[in-house]
Formats: sequence, structure tokens, C-alpha cells
Amino acid sequence: MRVLKILLLFTLFSLHAQPTKDLVSPEVLPDGRITFRLEAPKAQQVALRGDWLPRDEWRWGTVAMTKDSDGVWSCTIPPLQPEFYWYTFVVDGTLAQDPGNPHMLRDVGNLFQPLLITGGKGDLYAIKDVPHGTVTKTWFDCPTLKMTRRVTVYTPPGYETGKGDYPVLYLFHGMGGDEDAWSDLGRATQILDNLIAQGKAKPMIVVMPNGHTSNTAAPGASSKGFYKPIFETPDVWTGDFERAFPDLKQFIESRYRCKKDKANRAVAGLSMGGFHSLWISANFPNTFDYVGLFSAAILPPDGNHAKEYDNLDQKLSAQKKNGFKKYWIAIGKDDFLYKDDAAYRQRLDKLGFPYDYHESAGDHSWNNWRDYLTAFLPMLFR
Amino acid sequence: MRVLKILLLFTLFSLHAQPTKDLVSPEVLPDGRITFRLEAPKAQQVALRGDWLPRDEWRWGTVAMTKDSDGVWSCTIPPLQPEFYWYTFVVDGTLAQDPGNPHMLRDVGNLFQPLLITGGKGDLYAIKDVPHGTVTKTWFDCPTLKMTRRVTVYTPPGYETGKGDYPVLYLFHGMGGDEDAWSDLGRATQILDNLIAQGKAKPMIVVMPNGHTSNTAAPGASSKGFYKPIFETPDVWTGDFERAFPDLKQFIESRYRCKKDKANRAVAGLSMGGFHSLWISANFPNTFDYVGLFSAAILPPDGNHAKEYDNLDQKLSAQKKNGFKKYWIAIGKDDFLYKDDAAYRQRLDKLGFPYDYHESAGDHSWNNWRDYLTAFLPMLFR
Repeated sequence: MRVLKILLLFTLFSLHAQPTKDLVSPEVLPDGRITFRLEAPKAQQVALRGDWLPRDEWRWGTVAMTKDSDGVWSCTIPPLQPEFYWYTFVVDGTLAQDPGNPHMLRDVGNLFQPLLITGGKGDLYAIKDVPHGTVTKTWFDCPTLKMTRRVTVYTPPGYETGKGDYPVLYLFHGMGGDEDAWSDLGRATQILDNLIAQGKAKPMIVVMPNGHTSNTAAPGASSKGFYKPIFETPDVWTGDFERAFPDLKQFIESRYRCKKDKANRAVAGLSMGGFHSLWISANFPNTFDYVGLFSAAILPPDGNHAKEYDNLDQKLSAQKKNGFKKYWIAIGKDDFLYKDDAAYRQRLDKLGFPYDYHESAGDHSWNNWRDYLTAFLPMLFR
Repeated sequence: MRVLKILLLFTLFSLHAQPTKDLVSPEVLPDGRITFRLEAPKAQQVALRGDWLPRDEWRWGTVAMTKDSDGVWSCTIPPLQPEFYWYTFVVDGTLAQDPGNPHMLRDVGNLFQPLLITGGKGDLYAIKDVPHGTVTKTWFDCPTLKMTRRVTVYTPPGYETGKGDYPVLYLFHGMGGDEDAWSDLGRATQILDNLIAQGKAKPMIVVMPNGHTSNTAAPGASSKGFYKPIFETPDVWTGDFERAFPDLKQFIESRYRCKKDKANRAVAGLSMGGFHSLWISANFPNTFDYVGLFSAAILPPDGNHAKEYDNLDQKLSAQKKNGFKKYWIAIGKDDFLYKDDAAYRQRLDKLGFPYDYHESAGDHSWNNWRDYLTAFLPMLFR
């Protein structure tokens, strides 16, 4: 009788879903190849779409799947290099869940399922049995924008039980992101836990705010409800994020045990977040000893006259004069912002502004941004 | 040129997905009816499966969708009562995403999309413009089980900026859940924020641990990686969770500013978490002034001899003798545990053990558990 009840309790949830077969998918085979499976007996065409597949324009490529006599479609792909991959199934042109993988990620307005291949750098993205930092989602007052805003904060292992002060990295997302992006898509929590455990990064506080000043929080996490985000460009070049940065800094330095000097502050970001890092470090030119521009946008649109974006050369000259330890620019050879970044490097050269440059393969992608974070963290607070 | 780049940046992400049409779905119409839409020109049959639809056995019911000449399937359903609903599309028997709704929830091993209907109690589940608590995911040492375990902690608005001590509610999930369940599926964060803002609940710390002692953390959040969870019953009736409770309490009371007396401790949980609440309050019979059993499992399987589950009458008698303020039992008329709970009430009656009983409509579902939490919170710490 009791066993029956346990079975019932099992059934209660497992039968909510449609599939009748409990398929393993994705399955990493002993030789490293990976099999994906989907039950879809009535489908005419099923494909796997993955972010590792050669793109057709900007769209990820696909691999056709084939149907067996039980109505199960499958494909087996060659071994993948360690990486945090994303995929989805396409059934007769419609996006389908992989019921074998109950994990889902949102990037801007799209949903994907994760596939983590461990080994090599994949081990940095995995949750290992090492001391873990704490991830906090909290809200702070932003009087400059007359808003209360949500922010994600990573505190390193030992922070809560210790007494010392810690250095701080401000880490900004791109145009499609929000305060969840670096932890959900960028595996920042795992990269930090693992690099700190290996002694390769100093224990630090990492602050991941929402870079869209027209929102208080991520889609689904604000009073706007469960809406579908689009690229909300109107707020991007207003100067508001840069102007409101002191509110964030003030909040972090009063809430957390921070070392409050330039030698213990870093700022970095990807794409729009690189733009934010560039302009915040230029507008507050004696605040950060470490600046990281990952596939950064550089200039606002022509004709933008927000004072946060004027007099760049003067601001950079002040920053240079004040001194800093590392100004790190990273971009992929195929990034659509490559030329903008090259022009910016020429500008810096002309000013005699010291920087380090890292050019990688690839384009404007989370694969690169995780790599850049992994390369950037060990340079900090040395 | 720059506009082109912004468009490119837009395109970069939006074209990862397959659909060619940007459909609004779900759309709440002015009269309250709700339209769901999916582009699936090649499909033979498309249905909406929702947790509000009459069930076929344990499986949610479906509503057929119809195709227009553009290959867009849709259905319009009558207005729904305010609630936090879940749904999925079924395309020729395969689970399909609603690309109009980039939000996804995991319950045990299944993925669903949320639909929040506001108004009435739906407003308690919404993120309102009220002061927000902080949600922290952190790890604590559990020497009893020789593990480091993940826990979700809600601290109320004002906690971080204030100095006072706060009462604590320990809130446990069911057999299919984990430390994310009450916040993700139970809307506990929103219910707390909103009830506190209305003055209906006292500001309190809420501790949501992982009730499965064979795991350190939720699926995808532990070193087991992105696995598909099943009901891991082997750890459920071992007594381990009850035995290890003092480690959790010790952690919480040392990490947070807690009021450390019985009058300021509550414990509650749903299903397996109700079982945990019953047995932890019985085994530590002078610890909690408030106990909430939501659709609770009561007894371990016959033949279980863990000492945590022996001598129930003696333990309850001790608890009764020590005194407490509220022992609250809630269950739905159609819950499969109804009879077990009725037998337990008879047992309590026989012992003269005082309790309050709340019988609702419905069965073993998150709808009820959110209601029970909403009813339970205002009773606490008065």
C-alpha cells in the first residue's frame, strides 16, 4: 500500500509530460561521440540545432536526425571539445524540447538546452567539489535613476565566515543580457569557484548589475512580469548607466566588506558591457586599476551628445595620467566589432595609452566571453 | 553604419531561433480570454496542455489548437482565475516550446512555461513595486552527513541595512523538489515580499534547504551536472534529513541575525517536506512554536526502523507538554494523502494534541501549496 503511494507520487509528476519513452539524451558515449534522441513518431523532419555547428549566416547550423521503427529520432555527432554548448531540436520547423534534458537557458528571448562537455576548460565551467562562493540576488536604491534595481553579487568562499575586506570586480553583460546573464550563460560562478580553488584567481567580490536602465531587473524578475525581451536599445546610449554607476558603487561598498581603493577595483564587460566598462573607467578616471573590454562596443551612435560620451581623448589622458595596472582588450578575429576595436586601439596608441591586447579566434559569442573572463581574472589584484 | 551594426547585433541573437514569425503568445485579451499561438505549418495536430485543464488520470488535459492559412496554430481559452499556471505545447505528440514566452520552469524532470494571471491572489505571486527581500544561494557544512550542502535563504527587506534579529521559518520542499523549488515554483519570494509589504506577514528569514540527503544541491547545481532527476526515494526515509537538521540550524543561526528561541522558529513543508516538518518538530520537541504540514506525508514505509521515526506518540506527547502556538495541517479534499492525514488527525485527537485543520479543494499541487503558504505566513510570530 505504501509502495503504491510512492509509485503514485512518482506518477503524479512524471506523466505530466507527453513522451511515452524515457530516452537518454544527450548521451556522451565512451568514445566521446554524443547521441541525441527524441520521440516524434509523426514528424516528417527532425534536426538538432547547436551553437557549435557551422552557422548559416547568424543562425546556428543543424544536423539531420533519423527515425527508427519506434518513432525515435536520433543522431550521433563526433566528440566535441570541452565547452558549455547550447542546443535545441527543430521538429518540422518548430522548436521542440529535449525531454531527456530538463535544463533550459534563456539568452535574450530564446530558450536553449545546455550541454556541458567537461575536461580541459570545460572543467572550469563545471560545478566541482571545491569550496563554493555565495550568489545573492538583491535590490539597491539608485537615486540617480529614481529606481530600485536588482543586482547579482558573488562573494567568494570564506567571505561570510571571515572578517577581511575583499577586492571588487564589476562585471557587465551585453545588450541582450541582464543581471542573470554572467552567472547563467557565462558560468561566472563556476569559473570563479574553480580558479579561486586552484589559486589562480584571488578571492574577490563580483558585482553583476543590470545594464539596461529602462528595466529594474531581468525579464520575469521585475514588475513587468514574464515578458519576452527584445533589444531595448533606447536606454543603451543615454549615459544613464554610466551616470548611475556611483549609486551602485556606493551600495556595494556599504553593503559588503570591500577594499575601497583603486588597486582593489576592476571593471569588465562584454559587448555593450565592454562599452560600459570603457566609459565608466574613462568618466571616473581614478577608480579602477583593472579594465577589461571583451568584444567591446566602443562609441555611441553618431550624433549622441550625452556628456558621458564627450571628450574621450581628454578622459583617456586623465586616466593614463592617473595610472592603472591593466587595460585589457580582447576580441575575436571574426567579431563584427573587430574594426571598431582596431580603430580604438589606434586611438589609444596615438595617446600613448598603455593596454594589452588579446586576439582570439571566433566571433561575438559566449564561448569567447567565458574564455576572456578566465584569462582576465588571474591578472586582477596582483 | 552604426545603425546597421545595432541591427546586426539584434539579428545575431534573434535568428538563433527557428520561427519566422514573431507571434505574441500567450496574449491576455481585454475581456480576459487568453490566446496561445504557435507557428507549425507542417504539423498535423497541435494542442495546448495546461495545469488548469481537467486531468486525464494524472496527466494535465489539453485543448486542441487550429491552424490558419499562414501555418499558425492558435486557441483562445476562457478567462482564468488568478493563479500561477504552467503549460506546454504538444505538436504531433512532441513537447514544443512556445517561442512567444522565453520563460521556463523545471518541476522534477519536466519543463513548463509559466502563465501568471494577476488580480486577486495572482497579485501575491507577481513582482510588485514593493520593497524586495534578498535571495541567497549559499553552501553550508553538514558534518552529520559529511557534506557541503546548498540552501536558499530569503532575507526580508531591511534585513541587510538594519541591525535587529529576525524570526526564522524553515520551509521544506516535496519529493520531486530541491532548494530552488519553493522560490521557483512556489513563488515564495513574491508571496513573502507582498505579504510583508501589506503588513500581513512579519519580516522573517526563510530557509529553504535541499531535502534529499543523497544530493548536495539541485539538479544542475551540484557536481552531478545537468542530469535528469528522478524521484530519489532511497534517501527519503533514512532519517538523515531529520538527523542533520541541527547542522542546518547551527549554520543559519550563526550566519544570520536570528532570534534563537522557540517563539521565533517555525517549520513547514509540502508532501515529503510536511513529513520532514512533522518529524523534525517531533524529534526536537522544544524547538518550534509553529509547525505547518501542507499535504504532508505522515509515516515512513512499514518496516522502517530509523530511530528518527520511532515512538511517535511519546515524541508528540513531549511536544504537547512543551507547548507551542500553532500546529497547522492543510490538505486538499482530493489529495491522495488525504486518508493518511485523516488518520494522523485521529491520532492527534487521541493524544489531545492541539492543532488547526484547513481542508481545501483540489489535490497534491503547487496551487494548493502556494495557498497554504499564503495562509500560514500571517499566523507566524504573533
